Amino acid sequence: MSRLTHLDESGAAHMVDVGHKAETQRRAVAQARVLMQPETLRLLLEGGHAKGDVFAVARVAGIQAAKKCSDLIPLCHPLMLNAVDVSFTADEASSSVLIEAGCSVSGKTGVEMEALTAASVAALTIYDMCKAVDRAMAIQHIVLQRKEGGKSGTWQRDQQEL
Amino acid sequence: MSRLTHLDESGAAHMVDVGHKAETQRRAVAQARVLMQPETLRLLLEGGHAKGDVFAVARVAGIQAAKKCSDLIPLCHPLMLNAVDVSFTADEASSSVLIEAGCSVSGKTGVEMEALTAASVAALTIYDMCKAVDRAMAIQHIVLQRKEGGKSGTWQRDQQEL
Amino acid sequence: MSRLTHLDESGAAHMVDVGHKAETQRRAVAQARVLMQPETLRLLLEGGHAKGDVFAVARVAGIQAAKKCSDLIPLCHPLMLNAVDVSFTADEASSSVLIEAGCSVSGKTGVEMEALTAASVAALTIYDMCKAVDRAMAIQHIVLQRKEGGKSGTWQRDQQEL
Amino acid sequence: MSRLTHLDESGAAHMVDVGHKAETQRRAVAQARVLMQPETLRLLLEGGHAKGDVFAVARVAGIQAAKKCSDLIPLCHPLMLNAVDVSFTADEASSSVLIEAGCSVSGKTGVEMEALTAASVAALTIYDMCKAVDRAMAIQHIVLQRKEGGKSGTWQRDQQEL
Amino acid sequence: MSRLTHLDESGAAHMVDVGHKAETQRRAVAQARVLMQPETLRLLLEGGHAKGDVFAVARVAGIQAAKKCSDLIPLCHPLMLNAVDVSFTADEASSSVLIEAGCSVSGKTGVEMEALTAASVAALTIYDMCKAVDRAMAIQHIVLQRKEGGKSGTWQRDQQEL
Amino acid sequence: MSRLTHLDESGAAHMVDVGHKAETQRRAVAQARVLMQPETLRLLLEGGHAKGDVFAVARVAGIQAAKKCSDLIPLCHPLMLNAVDVSFTADEASSSVLIEAGCSVSGKTGVEMEALTAASVAALTIYDMCKAVDRAMAIQHIVLQRKEGGKSGTWQRDQQEL
Repeated sequence: MSRLTHLDESGAAHMVDVGHKAETQRRAVAQARVLMQPETLRLLLEGGHAKGDVFAVARVAGIQAAKKCSDLIPLCHPLMLNAVDVSFTADEASSSVLIEAGCSVSGKTGVEMEALTAASVAALTIYDMCKAVDRAMAIQHIVLQRKEGGKSGTWQRDQQEL
Repeated sequence: MSRLTHLDESGAAHMVDVGHKAETQRRAVAQARVLMQPETLRLLLEGGHAKGDVFAVARVAGIQAAKKCSDLIPLCHPLMLNAVDVSFTADEASSSVLIEAGCSVSGKTGVEMEALTAASVAALTIYDMCKAVDRAMAIQHIVLQRKEGGKSGTWQRDQQEL
Repeated sequence: MSRLTHLDESGAAHMVDVGHKAETQRRAVAQARVLMQPETLRLLLEGGHAKGDVFAVARVAGIQAAKKCSDLIPLCHPLMLNAVDVSFTADEASSSVLIEAGCSVSGKTGVEMEALTAASVAALTIYDMCKAVDRAMAIQHIVLQRKEGGKSGTWQRDQQEL
Repeated sequence: MSRLTHLDESGAAHMVDVGHKAETQRRAVAQARVLMQPETLRLLLEGGHAKGDVFAVARVAGIQAAKKCSDLIPLCHPLMLNAVDVSFTADEASSSVLIEAGCSVSGKTGVEMEALTAASVAALTIYDMCKAVDRAMAIQHIVLQRKEGGKSGTWQRDQQEL
Repeated sequence: MSRLTHLDESGAAHMVDVGHKAETQRRAVAQARVLMQPETLRLLLEGGHAKGDVFAVARVAGIQAAKKCSDLIPLCHPLMLNAVDVSFTADEASSSVLIEAGCSVSGKTGVEMEALTAASVAALTIYDMCKAVDRAMAIQHIVLQRKEGGKSGTWQRDQQEL
Repeated sequence: MSRLTHLDESGAAHMVDVGHKAETQRRAVAQARVLMQPETLRLLLEGGHAKGDVFAVARVAGIQAAKKCSDLIPLCHPLMLNAVDVSFTADEASSSVLIEAGCSVSGKTGVEMEALTAASVAALTIYDMCKAVDRAMAIQHIVLQRKEGGKSGTWQRDQQEL
C-alpha cells in the first residue's frame, strides 16, 4: 500500500492501463440503505401498483446508472456489462429500505464501481420519489459486499468492518 | 402526507407538472462522508500535487454529475444550474472525508437532487481512486443539509435527525 | 408551404433560430401502438407485479427519452420540460398496446418531438422486453394527436387522417 | 413461451445475464416507413443539396441512435457495434419514405434493438424536419426484417405477418 | 486581470455563479481550419452527393456538439440554445476547409464555448472521414471571432491577433 | 487513394464495417497547443493549488471526452479504451501550453479519434477557464503524432509536415 494507482509519479490522474490484464468473469455486489420515517416507509409499501412502481422506477434508474458508470466516474474504464440486477428489501424494524445491486462482466477490469453506482442511484431515486413527504431521509452505508474474479480473486466484506 | 407526488392515482410514475410554479432563486446543500482506513486518508492527504489531483478529480466528477441529474434520476426535471460547488474536508479524528455540495438555480423546481447527486458521485470518485488500497471504505450519511427558495421556503436539517 | 424550415437557402441543415419567439405554455400528445400475438399480450397482462414492471420500465424509458430528445433529433432545441406522462392501454380486440405520451413546457418552441420520442422509445422498450417470445411484433402509427400553445395555436389530429 | 425473460420470478425487471453466451457475428435489419402528404414528399425530394441534407441528417441521427441504444432501452446490454448503415427509399406511389437500418456486431447478444432504434430515430428526424409543413405525418410499421447469428440463428420476417 | 474566475481563493474549481446576471440575447461565432493534402480536398469536393454528405455529417456533428458543451467542458453552464449554424468553405489556395460556427441564446451566460466546441467537433469529424487517406491533416486556429450581448458587450477579433 | 471510406458508392455516410478486422493492441498519441498572452500563462502557472486545479480539470475533461468520442464523431465505432493519459507542458518561450493525449485499446479499430478528441477538449477546457482574462487565445495544431497497431502498423508524424 504505497501510492494511489490512479495517480502517476507526478500526482497527475490517469486511467490506469488495463491492456495487459486477462479477460475474466468478474462480479461485484454493493449495498446501500435508505433510512426514512416509518410513515414514509408505509407509503412506499402500501397499495399494489404504487409499491411496484416506486421500486420499479428505482430499479431502472440503478440499472441505467450501472451502464453510465464510466461517464460518471472519471477514471473508470468503459466496459460491456453482462448483467445487472437491483433488489429492494423493506426493513420495518429499522425503518429503511436495503438496496442490493449486482453487476457481472467478462472483462479486464472489475465492476465494483458499476455496482456501487447502481446502488447509489437507486437510493437517490427513492429519495427523490419520497422527498416531498420526508426531506430528512438519509442514504447510509454504501459499501461493496463482495467481488469475484480478476487477479485478486474473491473478496467478501467482513460484517464487522466500519 | 397522504400519497407520493410522483405517482398518480393509479400508482403510475410521472414527472410532476411544474408549469404553474413560480421561477424563484433556489439553493440546496448536501453532504456525504467517505470513511476509510487512517492509512488511506494519509495517502490521500500526502504530497502536494497528489492531494490536489484526487480532490480535483472528485470535484469535477461531482460538478458534472449535478448537470447530469435529470438523466440519472428518472422523474427529475431538466434545469439550468446557475452554480455548483463541491468542497472536501479531511477529518483525521473520524478517518473520513466530508463532502459538501451546493447547487443554485433560478427555476420552477428545487435543486435538492442535484446537490445530493453531486455529493454522491464525488464520494464514489474518491472510493474509485482509493479502492486499490482500501476496498472496505464506506460512503455514509448522504443527506440534504439545507434548502432555500420555492413555496416551502427554507429548510435546515436538524443535526439530531437520523 | 414552400420549403423546409430546417434547411437554409443552400439546402444546409441548421437549428432554426427561435430567439424571437415568445415563451408560452405548450403541450403535445403523441401515440404509438405495439401489435403483438394474443399470447404475448396475455403474458404482458398476467400476474400483478409482472404487469406493473413491464409497463413501469417502458414508462421510465419513455420519460427519460423525452428528456433526451434534443440529443437524439439533431435539429431539436434543448428545452426544460415541465411535465411528462406516459400511459398504456391494452387492447385485446386488436391484440395491441396503445401508448400515449404527453409533454408540457413553458418555452419558445413546441414539444411535439419530445412526445413522439417518448411514445417511440416506450414502444421499443415493450418490444425489447417481449422480443424473446414474439420477434414479429410491429410498432404502428406513431402520430401526433394534439398540440397546444405557440403561434399556431391548438391542432388536433383528424382521426380520418392517414 | 412461458414467461418474459427480462422479468425474474417475482416479476422484477433485470438485465438478462449473457455471460455464458458465445461471441458470434450477429446482424439485424429493421425497417420503418414515414407516410406524408405527396406535397411533403415532393419538397423532400426536390433540389440537389436539399435532398442530400435531409436524408444525410436523418442518416446521422439513426447511426448515432444505434450507438445510444443501451442508454435508451433500459434492459439492453451495451455493445460495440461493428457497423451501422441507414438507407432511405422514397416511394411516390404510397407517398412515403421507407427506412432500412442494419447493424452488425461480434458479440454475446443480438443487435435487433439497435437496428430498430436506428430506424425509429431516423424516422423521427424526418418527421422533425418536415413537421412545419405536414404535422399529420405518421410513422408506420417499425419492424424487424431479419436477424442472423446467435443461438437462434437466422430469422426472416414473413411478409404476411401483421 | 488578477485571477482566474473559475477558481476560488483556495484554487479550487467551481461553476461560477451566474444567478445575478441578466438574461440577454447573446451570440458567438467561432472558426477552425482543417489543413489537408490538395488531393484530399479534391476528394472532399468531388461528386455531388458525396460532397453534400461529408459536410452534412460534419455539420450535424458540430450542431450536436454545441448542445453537449456543458457535458464536455466541466465548468460550463447548461443553457438552452436558440440557434446553431455551422458552415464550410473550401479554400483551394491554402488546401484547407474553413469552418464557421455560430450559436445564439437568450441567457445569463455567453455561448463562446458552444461555438468553439461546434467548430472543433466539426473539424474532428472532417478529420475522421478523411483520415484513411491523409493522416497528417492538422486542425488549425480554433478561435473566437466575435461575441455579442452580455455585460461586456460586443467583442470582435482583431485579425492581427496571434 | 481513390475514395473516402466513410461514404458508400452513392456518397452516403455509414459506419465502416470492422467485423472482419483483427483485435490488436493499438495506441495513438495526439497533440494540441493553446496560445495565450504571457500574462495569462503566468496566471495559469502561479500558485500551487491553482495550477494543479486548472490542469487537473482540463485533464479530467480530456479523459472523459476520449470516452465520449463515438458519441461526438458520428461515424466512430464505440470501443473500450484500456488507458487514457493527458499531459500539459507550459512553454513560456511561445507563451503556450502544449497538450499531449494518449489512448490505448485492444480492439478492431484505432484510437486516433479518441486521442485527438481528448487533446481538443482539454484545450477547450483551458480556453474556458482563462477566457475571462484572454478571449483571443487560439488553439493551434491539433495533430496526430503517432499511431501503433492495426493492419497499417506504426505511423509517426514527420515534424516537417504542415
